[in-house]
Amino acid sequence: MDDGNVIAVMRKLGLAARSAARTLALTPAATKNAALEAMAKAILAAEHAILAANALDVADATAKGQPPSFLDRLTLNEKRVGAMAQAIRDIAALPDPVGRVLAHWRQPNGLEFERVATPLGVVGVIFESRPNVYADAGALCLKAGNASILRGGSESFRTCSEIAKALRIGLHAAGLPEAAIQMVPTAERSAVGAMLAGLEGAIDVLVPRGGKNLVARVQAEARVPVFAHLDGLNHTYVHAGASLAMAIPVVVNAKMRRTGVCGSTETLLVDQAVAPTHLKPLVKALIEAGCEVRGDARTLAVDPHVKPADDKDWATEYLDAIISVKVVSGLDAAIAHIERYGSHHTDAIITDDQAAADRFLAEVDSAIVLHNASTQFADGGEFGFGGEIGIATGRMHARGPVGTEQLCSFKYRVRGQGTTRP
Amino acid sequence: MDDGNVIAVMRKLGLAARSAARTLALTPAATKNAALEAMAKAILAAEHAILAANALDVADATAKGQPPSFLDRLTLNEKRVGAMAQAIRDIAALPDPVGRVLAHWRQPNGLEFERVATPLGVVGVIFESRPNVYADAGALCLKAGNASILRGGSESFRTCSEIAKALRIGLHAAGLPEAAIQMVPTAERSAVGAMLAGLEGAIDVLVPRGGKNLVARVQAEARVPVFAHLDGLNHTYVHAGASLAMAIPVVVNAKMRRTGVCGSTETLLVDQAVAPTHLKPLVKALIEAGCEVRGDARTLAVDPHVKPADDKDWATEYLDAIISVKVVSGLDAAIAHIERYGSHHTDAIITDDQAAADRFLAEVDSAIVLHNASTQFADGGEFGFGGEIGIATGRMHARGPVGTEQLCSFKYRVRGQGTTRP
Repeated sequence: MDDGNVIAVMRKLGLAARSAARTLALTPAATKNAALEAMAKAILAAEHAILAANALDVADATAKGQPPSFLDRLTLNEKRVGAMAQAIRDIAALPDPVGRVLAHWRQPNGLEFERVATPLGVVGVIFESRPNVYADAGALCLKAGNASILRGGSESFRTCSEIAKALRIGLHAAGLPEAAIQMVPTAERSAVGAMLAGLEGAIDVLVPRGGKNLVARVQAEARVPVFAHLDGLNHTYVHAGASLAMAIPVVVNAKMRRTGVCGSTETLLVDQAVAPTHLKPLVKALIEAGCEVRGDARTLAVDPHVKPADDKDWATEYLDAIISVKVVSGLDAAIAHIERYGSHHTDAIITDDQAAADRFLAEVDSAIVLHNASTQFADGGEFGFGGEIGIATGRMHARGPVGTEQLCSFKYRVRGQGTTRP
Repeated sequence: MDDGNVIAVMRKLGLAARSAARTLALTPAATKNAALEAMAKAILAAEHAILAANALDVADATAKGQPPSFLDRLTLNEKRVGAMAQAIRDIAALPDPVGRVLAHWRQPNGLEFERVATPLGVVGVIFESRPNVYADAGALCLKAGNASILRGGSESFRTCSEIAKALRIGLHAAGLPEAAIQMVPTAERSAVGAMLAGLEGAIDVLVPRGGKNLVARVQAEARVPVFAHLDGLNHTYVHAGASLAMAIPVVVNAKMRRTGVCGSTETLLVDQAVAPTHLKPLVKALIEAGCEVRGDARTLAVDPHVKPADDKDWATEYLDAIISVKVVSGLDAAIAHIERYGSHHTDAIITDDQAAADRFLAEVDSAIVLHNASTQFADGGEFGFGGEIGIATGRMHARGPVGTEQLCSFKYRVRGQGTTRP
């Protein structure tokens, strides 16, 4: 397909999505849920086809020398296909976000005002190797009454095509337009360019799902709003009022539960007031859990395994079993460090001092701030959103985990009795 | 000032605004309100200086041959200065939008979640001739804890400089940074380009206030989110179930109360079921109110003063005492016409048929939809927002009148008891 053809194909996709979005906006919850249930069934029914396509994709990626972590994200098996279907059923079970009355009031002239949740319109999703993102994102968008246009990495093209087929069967079964969830039918890179430009007004918001290069490109080049976070450079601050018994398990969990997720802690800040008692056992626990520790001078002194941290470490999201550790002079210094080096994603304080916790939660300017809890809770599922299309660190519209509620806009309904304005 | 200097000046403005925004985000309501009260006082105290500066601006604009409507928007007098001060006091009297708990829930693992309103950050406002926008926008942003950078038209430069001085006196009196509300200190056009680019990340959202050319340029070129509407091509639909006694005053008010505002009705749709009884009196009432009527064939037939409407008329926002009138076959045709020609701003249905009204309010995809009320209510003040920085027709973050609540973002506060994620 040459670039001209790609543009024509993408324009057609955009128009079909816009038309489908108008239908979805008025589709009752029961119909959307019936479609989701039929999709889950169709995915299970297509298990063999999906796994066969996936085997071809994985073989190609292996031949191309993709690293094991990439191959792991790309690979499906029976269990993962089952989880994909279950995730769609979980989304069906969520309350319908469309039509919620967000506010309701009456003015002295008798006008009745309602702010009501409406769908956003058309969501463009650009993702990389994990094919389950296709099903997840398509289902979440549908639940919120949005049409979606999904573009996966070329390495998962055959797998996604089979998943897309199953989702279309589900849409069709519920009488919904198949254009409600559309796969970009080409692996050409110019298709991404067309999406970044917003498909001539057809895309309302873009969601990049994947590595930093992808997110950075989308943020830099998109001509439409983007829900994303570039970094999850998160901090856990062990305050002067922290008990060591609480700090150790929370810090180890925050760093080591899963090191490759955006909610993992990358820098540990330890208050100098408790450094004499807390620093050494914290470092020891991290090292015993298999973590490399890079520390400032104070931290270097407590354990011979600690490597020296330089200024670059405070600004590095390792996404690995590595942590930087710094002793800070107090709450103000901790907040200042987070303001300087953090990515406004997720930051936590460990303390029994309620006033210090309240200040931290108020003053740290991040999408998610936690008190006495692991930063690994930065996840829509853990928030009770029943799924997320991503986590946003921007301030506009959505911030933190983006679930079905944040995939909605709103409108004002006003009811009068022949009311005129003086 | 050459372009290099302008860029340096604008960068400094951006950094100062970002720093002020961090202070404002943590400023208690009482301090913000004290600043607003001091600003109102300072404006009244500076009345002579403001009016003297304004007289010079008006003299220059007159010499340049600006039209009367422009001169009227530019001109201040004692009454308008008093209204400017009162508007600031009205904003002070509003509830503080920052810190509102928007949602609160507990997960089974004991984690307590709160979604809390936070300021957006830095708001850039680009406006044209009306100097009171400076005071209004600066005060609204401050109330929501945001810093603002304001750039008025070059014709109001001296007037805005005096207003800016008064607002700085108010900020200073309350101990707030003067950079909380900053005027772009040059009339050079390259300053606007720097704002459209987002001042190197210093501006979070732009609000254009003025004519269509300004709004179109900002929407096309801005690299940051924009709160705006390009058109207010609004419709009033007189449904089959409308009583003529209600339809006449509402339609005349919707069109003629003020013809130059974005909430005025530009097209009247009359259901064919009531056209025999309602069309002629509606047209007559409009003409008697001084309105030019441009109609389709059915409308032409009812009054010799009606001019023929062509396809362009359905797509024209007159902002004048002109209305286009069309007979439609029913609710579906009315909704389809609005979908095709409307600007998703404000549309109304007049009917005593509750089911038809509910369908119209659900299916018309506009920021504001009204039943039995004039489209002229499209105004933050009429919504009870106590002021608005503009009206948005985008779907992201804000839609409809943008008041202090929509000038906020939010964050998640999570409280645990040493909670780790399994």
